[in-house]
Amino acid sequence: MFLVILKQQKSSKMIKTVTLVGAGNLATQLGKSLTENGIEIVQVCSRTETSAKALADQLGCPYTIDLKKLKQADLVIVSVKDDVLERVLKQIDKRSRVVHTAGSVPMEILAGYFKNHGVFYPLQTFSKQREVDFSNIPICLEASSVEFLQELKQLANRLSQNVSLVNSEERESLHLAAVFTCNFVNHFYHIGDGLLGEKGLDFSLLKPLIQETALKVMSLKPIDAQTGPAVRYDETIIDKHLELLSYKPELRKIYSFISRSIYNSKK
Amino acid sequence: MFLVILKQQKSSKMIKTVTLVGAGNLATQLGKSLTENGIEIVQVCSRTETSAKALADQLGCPYTIDLKKLKQADLVIVSVKDDVLERVLKQIDKRSRVVHTAGSVPMEILAGYFKNHGVFYPLQTFSKQREVDFSNIPICLEASSVEFLQELKQLANRLSQNVSLVNSEERESLHLAAVFTCNFVNHFYHIGDGLLGEKGLDFSLLKPLIQETALKVMSLKPIDAQTGPAVRYDETIIDKHLELLSYKPELRKIYSFISRSIYNSKK
Repeated sequence: MFLVILKQQKSSKMIKTVTLVGAGNLATQLGKSLTENGIEIVQVCSRTETSAKALADQLGCPYTIDLKKLKQADLVIVSVKDDVLERVLKQIDKRSRVVHTAGSVPMEILAGYFKNHGVFYPLQTFSKQREVDFSNIPICLEASSVEFLQELKQLANRLSQNVSLVNSEERESLHLAAVFTCNFVNHFYHIGDGLLGEKGLDFSLLKPLIQETALKVMSLKPIDAQTGPAVRYDETIIDKHLELLSYKPELRKIYSFISRSIYNSKK
Repeated sequence: MFLVILKQQKSSKMIKTVTLVGAGNLATQLGKSLTENGIEIVQVCSRTETSAKALADQLGCPYTIDLKKLKQADLVIVSVKDDVLERVLKQIDKRSRVVHTAGSVPMEILAGYFKNHGVFYPLQTFSKQREVDFSNIPICLEASSVEFLQELKQLANRLSQNVSLVNSEERESLHLAAVFTCNFVNHFYHIGDGLLGEKGLDFSLLKPLIQETALKVMSLKPIDAQTGPAVRYDETIIDKHLELLSYKPELRKIYSFISRSIYNSKK
């Protein structure tokens, strides 16, 4: 598969070496996956020595905390918090070929700094301590030129079979949808955990339900998978639940609001 | 395993036959699973002939729409909407041994009608068209006597390895937690689907994320699994997302409210 792509794109260069700027959850997992797939990480750069060294040790490469000392590589991947991104970009050698990994930052932010620039956005939730299998993670690409896009695509295909071209506007919507379907969903797992904990019940009682709820939408549209009191507007249960939450105004408000939203979403 | 249980409880009767009142999602899946596990469903009773016949045909048993004509069986399982439950119970022969399957209805509701009564609550999301594997579904039991509880436990163990004794107060909290971790979660899948649909993007892009989000909390506590802009209070992204949702006041309110709730839940 890889050889075929290689032949088709004989003219474009191959990205073999990467400098990684950032050592957070995404940078950590991406760095590991790149290394496992034969890409050499030539250096990790991070704000603090502790985080830079921790990741560099895992990847078996040198590190720096000084952006002015970035080593040359075929690609610089910048994976830092959105609000420090521009400050970081300003310090990177202008001749570098640079991608960022952010969902909600337009590619344009890079245009003023680097000729060859793009976005390499893996749509997944990453935690440092949890290994992820990149092979089916959607990697969303955008690039300043067709040639550079081809190179990024080759690189992405080493990690995943699920590579898409996604422009900045689409990526922003993807990221927003990801916040709802991952972060907000996880918050509801947390709320469930809390409700059970108060009664001395174990969170594991909810695990088969959580799994099945996620599995259902692999084959059904979410709207067709919906069950429970809100979708049939079972006021008896809804009122009982609101009463149970009477001493928790925040949860009560969430319950009431989401229930109404579910009911309103009915076809 | 089953033989061992049988020996231990030689004195208690075994439930071999069941009359099923209700033909909704839960009744359908429960009826199928009971049949597959050697329990004879002697009759299905439902409000409409269409629904009664549909389920009876699947289970290969007779049906009725008249509660006065319920056939005798070792157990009557009543699986109807909460708000019609009492109306149904009133019409069932008082000598019957009856359980309901509702999360938020106390067992006490049955006490006035039947000497042997209890609750048989499988904690799962059921849809008619989707087969479920009962073997790891938590079945939460409550009963009017230790003897009847033993019988229900034997029955439940035929379907699942995951049988718990859960009283009415605990079950109510479980059900409330299930609404958050299943129905509300599914609603956020639906919102994600809608946001992508507007940009012509396919919901399948979110599937690996949805799976991983659910998988993460199989081993991490939800609070430790959280990622995204809200938990680190990344105002740049949050503001951008709120702006994206400016023409959708309902989603905007949900976004803002849940983000704040996530931030406040930080340890």
